[in-house]
Amino acid sequence: MKPSTPGFSFDIVATDASARSAVFDTPHGRVATPTFMPVGTQGTVKTLSPDEVADSGAQMVLANTYHLLLRPGPETVAALGGLHEFSRWPRAMLTDSGGFQAYSLAAASPSFPQRPLVQHAEDGFLFKSHLDGTLFSLTVERAVLVQGLLGADVQMQLDVCPPADAPREVVEEAVLRTTRWARRALSTSRPARQALFGIVQGGCFADLRAAHAADLAALPFDGLALGGFSVGEPIERMHETLRDVAPKLDPDRPRYLMGVGTPRDLIRAIGAGIDMFDCVLPTRNGRNGQAFTRSGRIVIKQAQWREDGRPLDDQCACPCCARRFSRAFLRHLYLAGEILPLRLLSLHNLHFYAELTRGARRAIEENRYAEWAQATLAQMGENP
Amino acid sequence: MKPSTPGFSFDIVATDASARSAVFDTPHGRVATPTFMPVGTQGTVKTLSPDEVADSGAQMVLANTYHLLLRPGPETVAALGGLHEFSRWPRAMLTDSGGFQAYSLAAASPSFPQRPLVQHAEDGFLFKSHLDGTLFSLTVERAVLVQGLLGADVQMQLDVCPPADAPREVVEEAVLRTTRWARRALSTSRPARQALFGIVQGGCFADLRAAHAADLAALPFDGLALGGFSVGEPIERMHETLRDVAPKLDPDRPRYLMGVGTPRDLIRAIGAGIDMFDCVLPTRNGRNGQAFTRSGRIVIKQAQWREDGRPLDDQCACPCCARRFSRAFLRHLYLAGEILPLRLLSLHNLHFYAELTRGARRAIEENRYAEWAQATLAQMGENP
Repeated sequence: MKPSTPGFSFDIVATDASARSAVFDTPHGRVATPTFMPVGTQGTVKTLSPDEVADSGAQMVLANTYHLLLRPGPETVAALGGLHEFSRWPRAMLTDSGGFQAYSLAAASPSFPQRPLVQHAEDGFLFKSHLDGTLFSLTVERAVLVQGLLGADVQMQLDVCPPADAPREVVEEAVLRTTRWARRALSTSRPARQALFGIVQGGCFADLRAAHAADLAALPFDGLALGGFSVGEPIERMHETLRDVAPKLDPDRPRYLMGVGTPRDLIRAIGAGIDMFDCVLPTRNGRNGQAFTRSGRIVIKQAQWREDGRPLDDQCACPCCARRFSRAFLRHLYLAGEILPLRLLSLHNLHFYAELTRGARRAIEENRYAEWAQATLAQMGENP
Repeated sequence: MKPSTPGFSFDIVATDASARSAVFDTPHGRVATPTFMPVGTQGTVKTLSPDEVADSGAQMVLANTYHLLLRPGPETVAALGGLHEFSRWPRAMLTDSGGFQAYSLAAASPSFPQRPLVQHAEDGFLFKSHLDGTLFSLTVERAVLVQGLLGADVQMQLDVCPPADAPREVVEEAVLRTTRWARRALSTSRPARQALFGIVQGGCFADLRAAHAADLAALPFDGLALGGFSVGEPIERMHETLRDVAPKLDPDRPRYLMGVGTPRDLIRAIGAGIDMFDCVLPTRNGRNGQAFTRSGRIVIKQAQWREDGRPLDDQCACPCCARRFSRAFLRHLYLAGEILPLRLLSLHNLHFYAELTRGARRAIEENRYAEWAQATLAQMGENP
């Protein structure tokens, strides 16, 4: 079933075993997949300007509904013209439903060490803001309404994401409730030209995942996501489940693996047939002084870079490498507590992720994905 | 006496009463004066990239010798090609001598509440690093050597800067010692094509200032600075002294007022005949959420901007205003603790300062400086 919301289409360009190269058209432009979405939690990709994010090669970003619901509030964003206008991001954008953070962040906040009033009931979530304890209710319908006000191109349905160690019965119940919520989300009206993706749960139980994927495939979602991965399970278990489940997701719609991951995770998940990713890793690690490069990771504070005049990666075209900022200078600035290296490393990492997905697309189109994946991992010093 | 170091020249373009428009040529390009130098303490203007600083209209930046002496060390900077190469700053650059921070910062550090071993003797300063307590010695000759290794275009002599409330005898002694240090600095060899400026002290004693200015004018410095202002004295006393002293500084060399100031301070000091300024204000205030605009200051966190879709200044050509980031978005990001608004406000403020000095130059060249100054201050809601 193809995406049915006006303004959206998804067309496969090439396949190579399970991997696919495709184009996902949105009202804010074309997204070539596989693609990586930088995370702009508060409406901004941390430390970077929208121009820099776009120039890095990012075609689509993710913003967090939970954070924007709390501050500045969806009505304020709507009054200012919606997220694109508010944040000056010209390309495609997706919002998550807010459910994951409502559950994990509000519940886990050190500001509210007493178990906060987080109810996760048939209607949705009742939670206290991690900022000031204000009580919020996030029902399935309200998640659609809030994301409608935010006005991104793609909404995500509210879902139930059980923890990694949840027993099978809990995961089964999460799957069933997520399906009920899927139907409710689809029957809630949302702005024209705003797509809605469903979310497949099922933990690392391949049979639950496959059944849920089939259930959701029957519904008129514009895309299908895999939620509930990267929540603490061993990464090999995720990949094992992915290899089995990803190829079973309806091939006519974008397949989105939420919250993943490292360059190695992307390479392997693309091989399993995933089209879209989001993760804080390239920007968070950038802010923590870590750069991803073709030949592995660089921890910029290490003494070995003290007098190293080389850029992070001399084949990289990002502003940090192209302008020849040296490892020594970046290290100096990082140790001095300056903001510039956090920007430069974040930017470099986003360029690296964009270049990685570009390389994957090219390899798929040239029918040499497995070979490319192996060579790329080997060069980074990673296991295949 | 004109600047005598090869690679440097200073030529008056126009004068209007005491105000001057001039060109100061350096090995890294021409600086049109009056000019404002953003401060890049650690070799970077905080939050900004060198490209952004250059695009803001800054023609010359200042780096702090004290900070670079401590970390990464002048030998490291030299091994990496000097400050221009190290920091990727393509235009003119000046380093201070480090004395002011050695005295004020090392002494004032909360990490060393016990009075640290700061000696201020005939040879220079002996001080403990505010970072880790390491003992450093900064003599007149070592200040020249260190600044030579850093390799900026302009060095500053080591000087003695008494506190604002110092009695006349202390200021007199500081003046005498600064003159002795001036001679020692000039007779210490430094790299070719690196200028050296002398520093006039004398506090707010106009007669001491005038006498010291005459003493230093007799020495072959490439420029003359006024130090020891903006150290806590009432700002009106500074301007009163400036009106008297600035016009007496040798007109054939650049006149540099160190560590000043607000837009109003610049406008008034330019009127008194000052050519160069440096100050952390536009970037520090930017990081604290304050924007300078044609019509006064904007404190971005204020509730009045909550749903304000206007840019900071709709006549401003800086990236923040030209890309139409709204006050509402900047406020949201600032309250959310994001880095982007610190960048955007810093950048906006540097554009504002550059535009202010451009306006001053134009007004001087058109012989209407007093009128321009009055109108500009009135529009900002400031007293003349």
